[in-house]
Amino acid sequence: MTLTTDFGLSDPFVGMMKGVIANINPSVNIIDITHEIESHQIFEGAFVLFQSYKFFPSGTIHIAVVDPGVGGNRNKLIIKTNNYTFVVPDNGIASFIIDKEDVEIFEIYNRKYFLPEVSNTFHGRDIFAPVGAFLSKGIKPESIGEKTDKFNTISMPRVEIDKKRGIATVIYIDKFGNLITNIKNDLLDNIKAIYVNKGIINRVSIAYEDGSPGELLTIPGSLNFVEISMNQDNTAKKMKVKSGDRIYFDLK
Amino acid sequence: MTLTTDFGLSDPFVGMMKGVIANINPSVNIIDITHEIESHQIFEGAFVLFQSYKFFPSGTIHIAVVDPGVGGNRNKLIIKTNNYTFVVPDNGIASFIIDKEDVEIFEIYNRKYFLPEVSNTFHGRDIFAPVGAFLSKGIKPESIGEKTDKFNTISMPRVEIDKKRGIATVIYIDKFGNLITNIKNDLLDNIKAIYVNKGIINRVSIAYEDGSPGELLTIPGSLNFVEISMNQDNTAKKMKVKSGDRIYFDLK
Amino acid sequence: MTLTTDFGLSDPFVGMMKGVIANINPSVNIIDITHEIESHQIFEGAFVLFQSYKFFPSGTIHIAVVDPGVGGNRNKLIIKTNNYTFVVPDNGIASFIIDKEDVEIFEIYNRKYFLPEVSNTFHGRDIFAPVGAFLSKGIKPESIGEKTDKFNTISMPRVEIDKKRGIATVIYIDKFGNLITNIKNDLLDNIKAIYVNKGIINRVSIAYEDGSPGELLTIPGSLNFVEISMNQDNTAKKMKVKSGDRIYFDLK
Repeated sequence: MTLTTDFGLSDPFVGMMKGVIANINPSVNIIDITHEIESHQIFEGAFVLFQSYKFFPSGTIHIAVVDPGVGGNRNKLIIKTNNYTFVVPDNGIASFIIDKEDVEIFEIYNRKYFLPEVSNTFHGRDIFAPVGAFLSKGIKPESIGEKTDKFNTISMPRVEIDKKRGIATVIYIDKFGNLITNIKNDLLDNIKAIYVNKGIINRVSIAYEDGSPGELLTIPGSLNFVEISMNQDNTAKKMKVKSGDRIYFDLK
Repeated sequence: MTLTTDFGLSDPFVGMMKGVIANINPSVNIIDITHEIESHQIFEGAFVLFQSYKFFPSGTIHIAVVDPGVGGNRNKLIIKTNNYTFVVPDNGIASFIIDKEDVEIFEIYNRKYFLPEVSNTFHGRDIFAPVGAFLSKGIKPESIGEKTDKFNTISMPRVEIDKKRGIATVIYIDKFGNLITNIKNDLLDNIKAIYVNKGIINRVSIAYEDGSPGELLTIPGSLNFVEISMNQDNTAKKMKVKSGDRIYFDLK
Repeated sequence: MTLTTDFGLSDPFVGMMKGVIANINPSVNIIDITHEIESHQIFEGAFVLFQSYKFFPSGTIHIAVVDPGVGGNRNKLIIKTNNYTFVVPDNGIASFIIDKEDVEIFEIYNRKYFLPEVSNTFHGRDIFAPVGAFLSKGIKPESIGEKTDKFNTISMPRVEIDKKRGIATVIYIDKFGNLITNIKNDLLDNIKAIYVNKGIINRVSIAYEDGSPGELLTIPGSLNFVEISMNQDNTAKKMKVKSGDRIYFDLK
């Protein structure tokens, strides 16, 4: 089982979720993907979940809770793919997985699998954790919810290409300050130059070491999207780029 | 077993504690409640522990180390309740649990259950971790310490009510900037208005979504204390409130 | 198995590594030493690993990845000591262990034990995690790599003593702001005074409580190096000291 949330690690929220899970299924192995999604940033949660889910063993249950609508009337979903099960609020956090996989989707409604007392502010603990734990014990999604084909989605910003000019977006910035763009690694072969604010990159590198200090690099990223990086430097800070910013490129 | 400390996650302190525990009892399941208690803030540790402990399976051993007096002459305690065992420095960190539960308290003294070398600065690793690990293997508290009825306590700030006016305290601020007050959820029915610096709240909400942007909300909190929140906004920052600040309310 | 990296906990990098490991060996117990090594700071990683490794059970596999040279031509190593196995990039991160222990060193080359697709930016996930996982399943280092006696090292800054004056270095600052120096605890008996910027310390303390507020303390540290501390205060901030700074001392 994995957990992905915006709960942070300062508060006891994540610990409580794990306590609830251990109460129901003491033998389940829980791995944190991250709890440092920026508060309420559903897109960031969706992107992180999408990049990570396939590295886990078949059968893994992924619980992902970035949930600004908690306690309101948003639904709660179980999403089954061939290899994985996702337990999420219905706000698009699993969109990129739904786009890519064959899925069966269930709307969670059976309170028998919730904590006896459900708060209006912490469904991670009161609903998503126990539902995930019961799934890990073999309870069927059909018993916890009802099949549905209604659900909310969000979408990846598109790369726009007009003649030989392209506009892309920085969709994620990692701890090292690397800019992850929405340009697929495949497209790199056709790109002549990338423009990041006042910086220009004219070649494709294969490792951070290829760059001299302060030099911008383009690298096919480990997440399958093109990264803009610097050798041992924080690109986001140096180039004053933040998540959501536009970058530009020329095709060959 | 759970861990609650102010050690942070940058240093290897928590990892070392887990190594010590794994050395003594490799099969124990360790869950982090949090390691981000503010340095030396015993009250914060006590509050977090109190909010969390009951969500864990019966039999759980809770180790909680916020320990500014380490290496001095403060005692070390094992506290047994009906369902849980706590291993803590004697500085009040388990006060709210002692208030609420039937307890047996033991002063830890048997060096046989410590690491062979005990430092003066890291009893988390050298005493509390191994004692917790031995307890998890079935060693009795009676073998590790001696029953005592002397121990230190701290107390929850009281809500003061004079006629129809009340004074409460912000006792905790979570990662989202929600203000957790010392007002019990039960009292909300009798409250007409709450005052937070220059903000007034005249109604009780049931979910964050009830608020328009920038509007202050009062919500019965998931920790059983009233929370002051904003829909997708950081109340503490917006209203310039910090932990320990006073807020005011009018009764109906 | 333990993990020590500079990957941080905001990104899904650590979670992915654990997913890869769980895929190969679902029953292995993974303990985080820390993931908050400052980006690219090999010395800091080496110091943390050196302080921590012996607190883990014999047989533990320690994976440590601070890896600014990822994707370039630095080698990858398996280092076997009597009790432990280390999986690391060849950049000196295991230097202090190699200095202290009898070791056998293997250069990792067998791609059979890597992920099928190896990125140029994330060998933690693609090489070090799976190699560690296969080692934990009993695969021999000889099958994964080839014995070598060529490897890179870094060194601990030396304490310089000229007549009765000494120069030492702050090698690490912990979360509490304690300064960990490169002065061994043993030397304390011979020291008359320590100078930290404008502060002087004339005595050795045994616990933080020995100091009055704002007073500098010298304490034999839990990591076997002398610490400069303040009772419930952040020494690094108060005295404006950062990692790498010099401090001075007089011998008796």
